[in-house]
Amino acid sequence: MTDPVLGTLYGLGVGPGDPELITLKALRILKSVPVLAWPAPLEGESLARSIAAPHLDGHHIEIAIRMPMDVKRFPAQQVYDDAALTIADHLKAGRDVAVLCEGDPFFYGSFMYLFGRLSDQFTVEVVPGVSSLMATAAATGAPLAARNDVLTILPAPLDEDVLIKRLEEIDAAAIIKIGRHLPKLRRALEATGLMDQARYIGHATMGDRQTVCALSDYPHETAPYFSMVLVHRRRDAWINGVGEAAE
Amino acid sequence: MTDPVLGTLYGLGVGPGDPELITLKALRILKSVPVLAWPAPLEGESLARSIAAPHLDGHHIEIAIRMPMDVKRFPAQQVYDDAALTIADHLKAGRDVAVLCEGDPFFYGSFMYLFGRLSDQFTVEVVPGVSSLMATAAATGAPLAARNDVLTILPAPLDEDVLIKRLEEIDAAAIIKIGRHLPKLRRALEATGLMDQARYIGHATMGDRQTVCALSDYPHETAPYFSMVLVHRRRDAWINGVGEAAE
Repeated sequence: MTDPVLGTLYGLGVGPGDPELITLKALRILKSVPVLAWPAPLEGESLARSIAAPHLDGHHIEIAIRMPMDVKRFPAQQVYDDAALTIADHLKAGRDVAVLCEGDPFFYGSFMYLFGRLSDQFTVEVVPGVSSLMATAAATGAPLAARNDVLTILPAPLDEDVLIKRLEEIDAAAIIKIGRHLPKLRRALEATGLMDQARYIGHATMGDRQTVCALSDYPHETAPYFSMVLVHRRRDAWINGVGEAAE
Repeated sequence: MTDPVLGTLYGLGVGPGDPELITLKALRILKSVPVLAWPAPLEGESLARSIAAPHLDGHHIEIAIRMPMDVKRFPAQQVYDDAALTIADHLKAGRDVAVLCEGDPFFYGSFMYLFGRLSDQFTVEVVPGVSSLMATAAATGAPLAARNDVLTILPAPLDEDVLIKRLEEIDAAAIIKIGRHLPKLRRALEATGLMDQARYIGHATMGDRQTVCALSDYPHETAPYFSMVLVHRRRDAWINGVGEAAE
């Protein structure tokens, strides 16, 4: 068992963007811990921290974990190694540390890289959060999946032939990590005849910044990293998502 | 546009079980609306209402939507028709109505049946919630999916041959709606060689009632409706979920 004088590491899901979509539990822990860590780009604001910001009162020690996004083969391991050492020092000194995670910590989140480095030595608690997956469905006004539909979560960085093969078999799909992979994704959707059933959602819970439109109407060649495309094979899913019969 | 004197219908995600995993937004709306509706079995307690119960003060008008679970071809449409009429009466009288939804309203939730009946006439707002999908990953202490893994959500009521075909292609899968379909699911996992990588999770966020074990160690022939099985093809995903390289 872990020595009780050690601090606890929390992976804290802070939700998809709207600060009001944080849970009571995450808020309680956020307010109680002395140390916060959060991922951020090399320069500029951390999305996770900006979500938590309205709930912060300035008493925290803060650790920025700065990582370039959309850059292939960057030596990310070194950044996580360094962050884990810094966090471990606080935990060894008996200070609890909360890592702020956009959405949910274990849904394709970078928290796993810290979890993998620290969970052998320290007590770790993961606090699940509202994922962008759920936020995008709420924003489109249509169920993500219903009845016995299979729902497939597809990372857009996959190779085009893999995307096509997977899309051919979907009932419903949520495509994540779009970024610079949007042109390839468009080709894969055209190739599988699904473009007309694809919706683009950006900043799902962020009020005026929210974008919800047919993907074919989205005018740009790239998309924010935290955007998503939802696809339903049944066209009527967009209309009322209900079909003719309950289970 | 909707007449402003009409009430608003809220689909309120109350999270996966722990009442502290409700969001600030859902709690605010819960406290402000005069009317609550919630799904329940024909007899007995509503899970959604029990999650919200610690936050209720007795001022609400409450509508029980009682439905037998695990019964095939029950005339569910009539139950939803009746509930929609009752809810519509409140909305027409200018009273906001919140429908309590376990987890997230649009992740395989029954809220869509009310949404489909009422969203043409009334303003509907869906408040996303922490899904059981995220809660089970937190309970197992391993990422649901990572890097460019494809994550497949599989409803257990699918036919055995469909389950087998889908399982053959997974990187990671979350199997939902298990209930009486557990023996069939076990056969499908054995047939695809994935039984050793399958974990059972019940009552993920419910403290003493939580069950997390290898599916092969789960001793029963059926499972609660709100349980889940997670499967990772890579065995090391259970150990640290990290693999050797960040993206």
